[in-house]
Amino acid sequence: MSAPAPCPSPDSASSPARPAAHATAQARTAAPELAGLSLPVRAELLRALARTLGEHAAHLADVAEDETRLGAERLRGEIRRTQAQLRMFADVVEAGAFLDVMIDPPDAAAQPAPRPDIRRMLVPLGPVAVFSASNFPFAFSVLGGDTASALAAGCPVVVKAHEGHPALSDLTGELAAAVLPSGALSVVHGRETGRDLVTDPDIRAVGFTGSTSGGRALFDLANSRPEPIPFYGELGSLNPVVVTPGACAERGADIVREYIASVTLGQGQFCTKPGLLFLPAGHHLEEQLHRHIAAIPTAPLLGDWIGTAYRTTLKELLAHPAVRPLHLTPEQEDPRTSAPALLTTTAEEVRTHPELLRECFGPASLVVTYTSADDLLDTLPALPGGLTATIHGQESQDGTLARRLSAGLSAGRLIWNGWPTGVAVTHAMHHGGPWPSTTSPLHTSVGGTAVARWMRPVAYQDMPEALLPEPLRRTNPWNVPQRVNGGFPGR
Amino acid sequence: MSAPAPCPSPDSASSPARPAAHATAQARTAAPELAGLSLPVRAELLRALARTLGEHAAHLADVAEDETRLGAERLRGEIRRTQAQLRMFADVVEAGAFLDVMIDPPDAAAQPAPRPDIRRMLVPLGPVAVFSASNFPFAFSVLGGDTASALAAGCPVVVKAHEGHPALSDLTGELAAAVLPSGALSVVHGRETGRDLVTDPDIRAVGFTGSTSGGRALFDLANSRPEPIPFYGELGSLNPVVVTPGACAERGADIVREYIASVTLGQGQFCTKPGLLFLPAGHHLEEQLHRHIAAIPTAPLLGDWIGTAYRTTLKELLAHPAVRPLHLTPEQEDPRTSAPALLTTTAEEVRTHPELLRECFGPASLVVTYTSADDLLDTLPALPGGLTATIHGQESQDGTLARRLSAGLSAGRLIWNGWPTGVAVTHAMHHGGPWPSTTSPLHTSVGGTAVARWMRPVAYQDMPEALLPEPLRRTNPWNVPQRVNGGFPGR
Repeated sequence: MSAPAPCPSPDSASSPARPAAHATAQARTAAPELAGLSLPVRAELLRALARTLGEHAAHLADVAEDETRLGAERLRGEIRRTQAQLRMFADVVEAGAFLDVMIDPPDAAAQPAPRPDIRRMLVPLGPVAVFSASNFPFAFSVLGGDTASALAAGCPVVVKAHEGHPALSDLTGELAAAVLPSGALSVVHGRETGRDLVTDPDIRAVGFTGSTSGGRALFDLANSRPEPIPFYGELGSLNPVVVTPGACAERGADIVREYIASVTLGQGQFCTKPGLLFLPAGHHLEEQLHRHIAAIPTAPLLGDWIGTAYRTTLKELLAHPAVRPLHLTPEQEDPRTSAPALLTTTAEEVRTHPELLRECFGPASLVVTYTSADDLLDTLPALPGGLTATIHGQESQDGTLARRLSAGLSAGRLIWNGWPTGVAVTHAMHHGGPWPSTTSPLHTSVGGTAVARWMRPVAYQDMPEALLPEPLRRTNPWNVPQRVNGGFPGR
Repeated sequence: MSAPAPCPSPDSASSPARPAAHATAQARTAAPELAGLSLPVRAELLRALARTLGEHAAHLADVAEDETRLGAERLRGEIRRTQAQLRMFADVVEAGAFLDVMIDPPDAAAQPAPRPDIRRMLVPLGPVAVFSASNFPFAFSVLGGDTASALAAGCPVVVKAHEGHPALSDLTGELAAAVLPSGALSVVHGRETGRDLVTDPDIRAVGFTGSTSGGRALFDLANSRPEPIPFYGELGSLNPVVVTPGACAERGADIVREYIASVTLGQGQFCTKPGLLFLPAGHHLEEQLHRHIAAIPTAPLLGDWIGTAYRTTLKELLAHPAVRPLHLTPEQEDPRTSAPALLTTTAEEVRTHPELLRECFGPASLVVTYTSADDLLDTLPALPGGLTATIHGQESQDGTLARRLSAGLSAGRLIWNGWPTGVAVTHAMHHGGPWPSTTSPLHTSVGGTAVARWMRPVAYQDMPEALLPEPLRRTNPWNVPQRVNGGFPGR
C-alpha cells in the first residue's frame, strides 16, 4: 500500500540511548534460541500469539479505534484476520515444507565427477526489522504478516511502529512479549530510530509496508550498507481493472456498482484499491457511476497527513488538461475528512501522459475509456507494475482479448471477474509484484511463501548424521518433506 | 570467485551503436516466445546446447587454450561439466517442480472470509544480463550456469563476455545462436557496454561472477535504476578450513597434503580455494607444508591483471606485522607467472586485524594457529560470510567442538572432512552465501535452484480453466507437481 508518510513526530529525534541498538542487541541474543526451536514449539508460539490477540481483542480494538477511527467492526475483523495469519504460519511451520529440504545422495559413478552427499535446507537469516503500515493496525503491524512470517522462519523481529497507532503498537508488543522468548520481538518508535534499524549491523533483512517514496529511501539505505541486506518493500499499486466490451454489455451496471464498493472500501485506504477502471468508450454508465459514489458517506481518513496527501494528489490530477472530473463532492472542513472522487480520461491520454498513472491513496479512482481492443492493448505496456490486475470479461465472447490482457498486464495477482480488495490469506496467495509495487518481484508479504524472505539456503556436504540439523537427517526425526535428487516426495 | 578486474580494453569505449541496446531489444522480442515454450521443448533446447558443445569440443578447447592457458585436459573437463549443467537444467525443466505450482481451491466456508480459487506459479522475469567469469571460460561463461538457468526459466540472455576470452565467447555465442530461437542469446563486449546492460530498461535481472569491487559497483548501479532490478553477484570468498585437535593428531599429514592440492588446484584460481587453514598451535606440520607446496610447479595465471593483483595482495599481506611467511618461492620475471605461497598468523591476530581477512586470488593461503577451542570459536564471528566453510574433525573425539564450529561458521556450504574446490553440480548444491561472498544470501549460482533467480510468482484468482497457464490447470496437461493447500503431492 502507499499511505503517504506523516510529518516527523516529536519522538522521532535521535536519542543518545539509541533504542534501535538496544532492541537489535536483544534480538541478536535471542536469535540462536529462536532458530533452534523444534518446529512444533515454533508453531505453538505462533498459535499462542493468535490466542493472546483473541483474549485481548476487545481492549485492543478500543485502543485501535482511538488511534485510527477505522470502526469497531472493521477492527474486530482485522484482529480475526491477523489471528488467521498467525495460525496459517503455524501450519506452514508444522508441515515443514518451508525448509525446502533437498537431498542428493552420494554417487561414486557420477559423470563428470563423483558426487558427495549434499543436503540442503533453509535456515533463518537472523534478526529482521519490520516497518508497519498505517492502514492495517493489526494485519500489517506489530503481529502482522511480516512479523508472523519472520517468527515462523525462526528470526527475531524489531518492529518500527507506525506513527498512526503508537499506543496500540506498544500494547500489542507487550502482549506478545509475555508469550515469546525474551528479545524475540521488540517495538521501537520514531523515524530516526527506523533509519538506525536499517543500518544496524545486527539486522539481516527488512520488511516494509508503506509509501513508494518512503520505501525507496529505506531500500536505498539498506543497499548502501557496507554489508547490504535484503529489503522487501510493499509500496504503491494502481490495480487496474479492465472491463471487456462483452462484460460491459452483459453486466456493466453490476460491475460499476461493485467497482465503487471496492474503491471506497475502508475509505480507499487499501494497497489493492482499484485506481484505474478501463471501460469501452460509449459505455453509458456515467449516471450509475455518479449514483453509486454519491451514496458513499464521507468518512475520516486514517490520519491528517493522509487526508492532506489525498486532497493534494486529487487536486494535481484534476489540474491536468487530460483529466475530467466524473464525480466530485464538496470537501469538508475537517482535515481528516476526504470525500470520494471519480475522474476520467482516455487510453490515448494515459499512453501520452505517464504522470496520470500515480496512486491516489484514498477513495478516488480514474475511469479510462478505450475505443477498441487495440487501443486497450496498446495501453498495457504504459501501466506500471502492480500488486494486482483484474479482468472483467465474458469468456465465451471475448476469450482471445482476455488471453491477450492476461499476458499483457504486469502484476503479481491476476483476478478474473472479481475485485482486488480483500486479499485471501492462503498458502498460494501472492501479494507482491514488479516495481514500483514492490522492491523485489520475487517475494510476497501475504501467503505461505512470505516466510522464504527471511531464510537462506545452506548445503551440508558429507556431514555425519549426528552433526546434521534434524530436517536433513536420514532418520528424518521431524518428518519433514525431503526432496531427493530434485524429485518430490511420493512422486 | 574474485578474480580482479583487468584494465579497460580498447573495445570498452562507449560506441554510438550502443551494442547493449541492440542486444536487449532482440532479447525483449524473444522473451514472449521463450516464455511460451512448452517444458519439453525448452528442455530440448538446453540438451541441444549441450550436444553442440560436445560436437565442437576440440575446436572450443583449442580457442580457449589460446586465450586462457588453462590446459587442454582441464578445458575438456570443463566442457563436460558445462554440458552436464545444461542437461541438469533440462531435467529440472522437465520435472516441472521449479515452477513451484501451488493451488488453494475455493472455500466458501473459510474463516474469517470465504476464499476464492488461488493458483500460483513462477513466470520468467524477462531478459537477463549475465557477466561471465575469467576463470571458468565454459562453466561460468557464455553457456555457463547463469545462462543455462536463465534459459531454463524462460528468460533470454545477453552475456557480457569476459575480456579474458573474447574469441571463445563469440564462438560459443555463434554455436548457441544456431540452436536457439532468434534473440534468445547474444554476446556483447566491453565495460561500458556492460554498464549499459545493467541500466537498460529491458533488462530485468543481472547475474555476475567476479571480483567484490566490480560486483559491488554493478550491484549499486542496478539498485540505482529508476526501476531497481535483482542483482545476483557471486563475489569473493575466503573458504576457511578448520582442523580440530583430534583430526590434526589423527591425520594431520594427510590433511596438509590435501590442503596444498586444493589451494593450488588450477593455480588457486577458484572461488572455493581454501584461503584460511586453522591448525592447533604446535601442529608440527610446517615441514610437510613446505615440502608439499614446494613440489607444485609455478604456472601462468589466467591473465596479466590476475598475476599483478596476486603479487600485489601477497606483498601487502607479507608487509603486515602480524603475518609471517611460511613458504615463498622467488618470483619469476614473466608477469603471468606467480609462484605458490603460504603465510601464517595466529587466531588472536586475525581477531585484531580484520584487514588480514582478504581474498588473495591465486595459489596462496594463510595458516592460522589457535591455542584452544575457545581461541578458535572466538575467532569465528570475525570471519566474513563465505561460499564455503570446512571442518576436519574426528566425530567420536571432538563432536561437541564440531557442532559448535558448524553453528558458528557463516557460509553457504559446510563441508565435513573434504575440500571446497570441485563444486558438485546437483539439484541440492548451494553455491552462495552471506555477504561479501554474494550480494544476495538467498540465491545460488550452481545447482537446480539457481533457476529461481530469474522467476517471479504470479497468483491467478478465479481464472477460468482456458485462460490459465497449462501448469495451473485442473487437467494438469503438463503433469507438473501441484501442491494443494500447502501440502506436497503424494503426502
